[in-house]
Amino acid sequence: MTNTITQVAGNTCFGGQQLRFKHFAETLNCEMHFSVYLPPQANDAGCPVIFWLSGLTCSDENFVQKAGAQRCAAEHGVILVAPDTSPRGETVPDDPEQSWDFGLGAGFYVNATQSPWAQHYQMYSYIVEELPQCLAALPVDLQRLSIMGHSMGGHGALTIALKNPQRYRSVSAFAPICAPTQCPWGEKALSHYLGEDRQHWLQYDSCELLKARQQPLFDHAILIDQGDADNFLTEQLKPELLQQACEASGQALNLRMQPGYDHSYFFIASFIGEHIAYHAKYLNR
Amino acid sequence: MTNTITQVAGNTCFGGQQLRFKHFAETLNCEMHFSVYLPPQANDAGCPVIFWLSGLTCSDENFVQKAGAQRCAAEHGVILVAPDTSPRGETVPDDPEQSWDFGLGAGFYVNATQSPWAQHYQMYSYIVEELPQCLAALPVDLQRLSIMGHSMGGHGALTIALKNPQRYRSVSAFAPICAPTQCPWGEKALSHYLGEDRQHWLQYDSCELLKARQQPLFDHAILIDQGDADNFLTEQLKPELLQQACEASGQALNLRMQPGYDHSYFFIASFIGEHIAYHAKYLNR
Repeated sequence: MTNTITQVAGNTCFGGQQLRFKHFAETLNCEMHFSVYLPPQANDAGCPVIFWLSGLTCSDENFVQKAGAQRCAAEHGVILVAPDTSPRGETVPDDPEQSWDFGLGAGFYVNATQSPWAQHYQMYSYIVEELPQCLAALPVDLQRLSIMGHSMGGHGALTIALKNPQRYRSVSAFAPICAPTQCPWGEKALSHYLGEDRQHWLQYDSCELLKARQQPLFDHAILIDQGDADNFLTEQLKPELLQQACEASGQALNLRMQPGYDHSYFFIASFIGEHIAYHAKYLNR
Repeated sequence: MTNTITQVAGNTCFGGQQLRFKHFAETLNCEMHFSVYLPPQANDAGCPVIFWLSGLTCSDENFVQKAGAQRCAAEHGVILVAPDTSPRGETVPDDPEQSWDFGLGAGFYVNATQSPWAQHYQMYSYIVEELPQCLAALPVDLQRLSIMGHSMGGHGALTIALKNPQRYRSVSAFAPICAPTQCPWGEKALSHYLGEDRQHWLQYDSCELLKARQQPLFDHAILIDQGDADNFLTEQLKPELLQQACEASGQALNLRMQPGYDHSYFFIASFIGEHIAYHAKYLNR
């Protein structure tokens, strides 16, 4: 694995650098893009990293352009890494029905086991293993990692952190899909990527991971923001199930229902500063 | 003139409301969209307004999505109003060559006098007269207005404020086209909209407006940010001409050359907070 990355764009932003890279991802068997914000502090020393996992239909660029996160990252001296949401390219199979909730733009951060998906859709391993290695050429401190995300990416951040609590110092999410085994988006994607046997789905369900462990995974509360005017709240997101699972396992949870907020980046932008401050507390101590 | 506006989108953002409206613009003889951010303070009282004029190719939405300005507007209790950059629709003529620097998305904030442009391209009157009247149904204090913009919109903000210093309390710009009569973008647009007689162009050139007045138009310094890595700096923007014109007329100017910054929204986002604070100082006193 060579981990060679090539910069394709760069913009000065809040005294740091908003960068975009492409590379051949061995895990995914295709060329991928990802974005990195280097705060001004990265000129002097390796900085901690917060991974941002985006939701359905997004590329690496939505968060970069719409969340206003660079200001907060510059304030706290943290690097932001935003990967894409699925493998990409002409060789990568998509949903034959070209829906937006499965296939391209909808990798669900799992390692697919079913044909034709398994050859490329290995987003779990890409995020956990390959992508951090690709950052080695940058001024990163890979001993200090946190992870957050939105919607499908909130599901990704939670499951990845809960499966690897020793690797990530903290996890937070905006409007996450809390129980993909119990909602239409999750059932559709997991049945295709992992097959019809629901036992195989449980390893990618935050609630199931918490219940299986039966003990806290983080010694501080997980931070979740959820808008109460979010159209997907009841059918797809189900934060009450995460709350129950946290209670059952003794994991502290700070679930904040935000009045009037919907599922958009206007919601994310409103609270991203508090999420970055939350992670910085654990990354910079 | 009815000034009826219809809300077409709304998102809670930083405790306020990011709204989008459509209306039939009499001045422009077509349907237009514009965006408004109402800060939380607008729930209780009329708030002052900062108009944002965007650059070439933009609609009203680029600034709304990419500048991160809502956070600052909520902090200072100011309303942000972002109009489109030209008349729109099937009946509106575009550059036959479909270039991006003239025609649709490139109204240059002038009142066109030449056929076929004059029937719709009346962006100066739209911004100065019609759009403020359309805000009457919102919790605005129309006695407290400021204006700012980027690139072509920086030119628009400067010329509109310099022609109406009694109407706007302050003006600022990001990378403005400082002298449209002396750069390719301006020469192309003005020759089409206003005809070949350059005498008619001078009323829409900030430098010419300053020199003609021969005295300060604002009793405080105009704020301009300009990236020194901006690809358009030398050929199109020419801030040195604005500096000379301000010196000639005695108008104070705070021209800040920002090292490493380019022409993008990453540049705007980095300094929008300081611009909003600058305007709030004059709007809230």
